[in-house]
Amino acid sequence: MLNFSVGPVMMDSETKQLGAEEVPYFRTDDFSRIMLENETMVRSLALANDQVRLITLTGSGTLAMDATILNCFTKEDKLLIINGGSFGTRFCEIADCYGIPYEAINLQFGESVTLDHFENIDLATFTGLVVNADETSSGVLYDIEMLGNLCKKNNLFFVVDAISAFLADEIRFDEFNIDILITGSQKALALPPGLSLILCSEKAQERINHNESPTYYQNLKRALKDGERGQTPFTPAVGIILQLHDKLKRISKVGIEKQIQQSNDLAKYFRDRIAKYNFEFITDSKSNAVTALRVPVGVSARQIFKELESRFNIWVCPNGGALSDEVFRVGHIGHLTKGDYDTLFSALEQLQKEGIIK
Amino acid sequence: MLNFSVGPVMMDSETKQLGAEEVPYFRTDDFSRIMLENETMVRSLALANDQVRLITLTGSGTLAMDATILNCFTKEDKLLIINGGSFGTRFCEIADCYGIPYEAINLQFGESVTLDHFENIDLATFTGLVVNADETSSGVLYDIEMLGNLCKKNNLFFVVDAISAFLADEIRFDEFNIDILITGSQKALALPPGLSLILCSEKAQERINHNESPTYYQNLKRALKDGERGQTPFTPAVGIILQLHDKLKRISKVGIEKQIQQSNDLAKYFRDRIAKYNFEFITDSKSNAVTALRVPVGVSARQIFKELESRFNIWVCPNGGALSDEVFRVGHIGHLTKGDYDTLFSALEQLQKEGIIK
Repeated sequence: MLNFSVGPVMMDSETKQLGAEEVPYFRTDDFSRIMLENETMVRSLALANDQVRLITLTGSGTLAMDATILNCFTKEDKLLIINGGSFGTRFCEIADCYGIPYEAINLQFGESVTLDHFENIDLATFTGLVVNADETSSGVLYDIEMLGNLCKKNNLFFVVDAISAFLADEIRFDEFNIDILITGSQKALALPPGLSLILCSEKAQERINHNESPTYYQNLKRALKDGERGQTPFTPAVGIILQLHDKLKRISKVGIEKQIQQSNDLAKYFRDRIAKYNFEFITDSKSNAVTALRVPVGVSARQIFKELESRFNIWVCPNGGALSDEVFRVGHIGHLTKGDYDTLFSALEQLQKEGIIK
Repeated sequence: MLNFSVGPVMMDSETKQLGAEEVPYFRTDDFSRIMLENETMVRSLALANDQVRLITLTGSGTLAMDATILNCFTKEDKLLIINGGSFGTRFCEIADCYGIPYEAINLQFGESVTLDHFENIDLATFTGLVVNADETSSGVLYDIEMLGNLCKKNNLFFVVDAISAFLADEIRFDEFNIDILITGSQKALALPPGLSLILCSEKAQERINHNESPTYYQNLKRALKDGERGQTPFTPAVGIILQLHDKLKRISKVGIEKQIQQSNDLAKYFRDRIAKYNFEFITDSKSNAVTALRVPVGVSARQIFKELESRFNIWVCPNGGALSDEVFRVGHIGHLTKGDYDTLFSALEQLQKEGIIK
């Protein structure tokens, strides 16, 4: 199997090996120590100060998006949501679900957000800005630094879903004035899916601790409290947490810059070579995590996905809904090498010979 | 490591080996087929009819308890909750959290529920009965058949948290008139923690589909809908789901009766031998999943836990809170043999020699 989807991604042998270990009992000092070390390492990789806290949730990235909205905002707030695709829309759906007031900046698919988009918006009427650092459905990387500056100037609480951007694109928690940073285990961390992480600024901790949190499993106040001693309110995905600990230690040795450079290198290698095919890049503002491609008339993106999977055992990432025949994506996170892309290109070449790709 | 805790439990080599495999992309027909086969197998092991549906959630068992209360009940309902320990109390806390009216039958720690407890209760004023099939904190197994009959006679919606009872104690979904049955991956299924399962009767599906579900991640209506085609709304713990599929196939071959008998045999083996020690059984109505023991005056349950762990690499299960020094528990689920209990008894003998146990 060769997997270029955007999660679950290819895992390295160390992570896989740990998946074969017994999962220990976790209400122990040993496990608490591991959890606290994870907090320190994630903080450091996100370039966040020592007061920033990490919450580890057992569930998908959407659980963390959901829990963030539920715990940080109330009906008294008003959110500005950058909506450029499926995951921006997901934040709108979550706000709708709980009746939290919001306005969306609705972008074209593939469009990035610029200062122009804010021209007719009175930011003083909002309390929070919510964005997916990269919109995974289109591969657009937003300018988080620019948005963070806007938040600072206008005293907006800044929520950044970096589920697929963390460790792939540059995210500087403190410098970008981020209050909440979300990521998930099955993205650039290259672990099995099942774990999501929420990094909370002091302002975020304050909001969480002063909110009524009308939720039980997703109660972040309790998670922050239990997290002080390296524990979680409910049985966590202990196995994945141990894999996370190992992975964070290895990434910390390499350093965050080199880690991001790896995705950047793979993305560049792929994009240079795919340029000669008759596909269209969806965006100019590309995340390192993934490249989204529009197929020309007469070609089916879904068919490319299916042919690669059934004949070559290669997974790319199809888009859902209306775009499923028009767009497919190729990821640059996880345990991938340039040689893996060569394998993909050999397969694409074959599909081109057969007229499936033009 | 030898782990007698009640989750995560010891895994067998097949499950562990699968933990070392790549986690595949999951929006595929192959994965859908696996999910649908899981549904069929869980239904069959729970002795449930073909109309019963399985929801697979990524999260701990508490997520499933929480989602059940949120999706099946509203403020118009009134619940009767059997509260005999930490997990009964958890259901009360969840109902409190969402303002869902309830009354609790508060039992002594270790006490079972009998028809007498219902004598002064007007069941006609309730819409649902909620119980933990076995109260994992005390090891009490409740009479689910008796409770199910009460529910049938009084038209009560019957929620059974069988998180640690499923596959360890006898649960007959249809015969016991169960509407919701909950379990978790890290109990008798002996998988890593991270997955919880909710089995829904037709009546449950109706309640879920007619409820407004004021929740996003925990929206069971959407889970039922996507589950029709073997998919989940959000990225599930794919790795654990594949381990679940393998495990269910193997348990299905053995058969549910033999599977339950295994826990029963281990429990009996342990209880016969522990009887000669100066511990007190917490309950007469014992679950096959776990034995809870009260230590005599002058002995510390917490110390037993710590000595076993640090010197013998053996984990038993401490109780939390006020009982942490008085009660410890020994589980009978997971990949355990009689020989493993012999190892435990050797260690206990040593602790007795040293006067740590009397």
